[in-house]
Amino acid sequence: MNLQAVWIDGAPGDTVPVDDRGLMYGDGLFETILCREAAPRFLGQHLARLAAGCAALGIETPDAGLLAAEIRQAAALAADGVVRLVVTRGSSPQRGYAPPAQSRPRRIIARYPLPPAVAADSGGIRACHSPVHAGLSPQLAGIKHLNRLENVLARARLAGSGCAEAIMSLHTGELVGGTQSNLFVRLEGRLLTPAIELAGVRGVMRGVVLREAARLGLEVVECRLRPADLLGAEEIFFSNVRVGIWPVRELEGWRAGRDPGEVATALRARIDHLHD
Amino acid sequence: MNLQAVWIDGAPGDTVPVDDRGLMYGDGLFETILCREAAPRFLGQHLARLAAGCAALGIETPDAGLLAAEIRQAAALAADGVVRLVVTRGSSPQRGYAPPAQSRPRRIIARYPLPPAVAADSGGIRACHSPVHAGLSPQLAGIKHLNRLENVLARARLAGSGCAEAIMSLHTGELVGGTQSNLFVRLEGRLLTPAIELAGVRGVMRGVVLREAARLGLEVVECRLRPADLLGAEEIFFSNVRVGIWPVRELEGWRAGRDPGEVATALRARIDHLHD
Repeated sequence: MNLQAVWIDGAPGDTVPVDDRGLMYGDGLFETILCREAAPRFLGQHLARLAAGCAALGIETPDAGLLAAEIRQAAALAADGVVRLVVTRGSSPQRGYAPPAQSRPRRIIARYPLPPAVAADSGGIRACHSPVHAGLSPQLAGIKHLNRLENVLARARLAGSGCAEAIMSLHTGELVGGTQSNLFVRLEGRLLTPAIELAGVRGVMRGVVLREAARLGLEVVECRLRPADLLGAEEIFFSNVRVGIWPVRELEGWRAGRDPGEVATALRARIDHLHD
Repeated sequence: MNLQAVWIDGAPGDTVPVDDRGLMYGDGLFETILCREAAPRFLGQHLARLAAGCAALGIETPDAGLLAAEIRQAAALAADGVVRLVVTRGSSPQRGYAPPAQSRPRRIIARYPLPPAVAADSGGIRACHSPVHAGLSPQLAGIKHLNRLENVLARARLAGSGCAEAIMSLHTGELVGGTQSNLFVRLEGRLLTPAIELAGVRGVMRGVVLREAARLGLEVVECRLRPADLLGAEEIFFSNVRVGIWPVRELEGWRAGRDPGEVATALRARIDHLHD
């Protein structure tokens, strides 16, 4: 068992009722928060995204001060690790999709060790295009909700492929992002990333990359990208809060000129010591 | 509390571990089975759809005989009711989307009373077009999986609208089905229903309607439909296993000539006494 500690609504516990709407319908949200030196990184950004997601789904946002205190408590358990926060719409007295008129959200805070893969992840990786399409849902785009079956299927297809990450696209071919990360492409000197309009998650590290790239003086563009756009890329990398910047060495024919590229290197140097 | 009884992996219980992948990612499936006279209806069809869904998601299908026995046991608790079967991919020793190499599915069987709405549902209803789009996911289309946030949001928007059901469509305008049902349209004498290719659930009652309509000598077509196609409809109805055939009396300007229409009436007469 990998789980080190769990609190449910503030109390130690490791089960939830079967009528929790997170379990019944994926009716909830989550945040995966990296902890360094026993403290959460980018906590403000995580809580802001959670609040935006709760608002979009009509779930009452738990008090931010309470969440922050509980996440800090979980982070303090050990030096490095991951805290996973889940907020579901809570239990439903009735069966059925309709949310109850009065619902009391349930919060689950689980502490995990840092996966051993992180060291190896930091070099350039082999990536591929996933045969699994991202789900297209304009209302849910951007939100880190619990409906993650496409990501699960895409990760399942990666097993044994020799690739550490895969790019998911819509059925139309438009690129969405990695299976557990956002995608960045340096093309003609500009930094491009898929717009989060129809699908994908608005990653916390994506936001940090956009901000820091602008501070580096790079032109940053959120746009629609297709696989062919990657062929001329000067650099390709993924981002997520666990790995940070994840440069691609090789992607179905494309090869990095330098590994890692200069923008990935510069961004890493800026981001690595940041806490918010 | 509406829940009358719950069994988890065959034993009475009402909680699941927080590392259950159904809760973590919506990584699982469900079936909502109507019970009449203490017996499940259309049990073979439910178990067949579950098995197809498990195969698509790479979840080991629980033994059909075991499931049937457990569902029958839950159905036998009282005369009329609903049994909800959930099969998740089980607990994951690791955090992350990738399914574990070895997973042991978890099955949850919950018995609910029949909701009081059923009697009122049987007359013609007012329906509308939902402002919430159905998620588009070619790999997941047809499967009754646990990623149901669009349905939840669509049902939430129905509250207080005076409509009992809403038609969900893709962001392109193509019709998908009801928020908790499939959609049928009689047009120029033929019975049309949205093809389940990009979105939607392959409802058990939808399959029964297609079969029985063909036996009635109707031409039945699974096709792509748009809102404008409904304006000339001779009849519109929804189907699900709880209500059976749910005729529409009024839909944003459209009004039924007869309520319920003749095909809905004929199908009801055929289907009402069926058990498989």
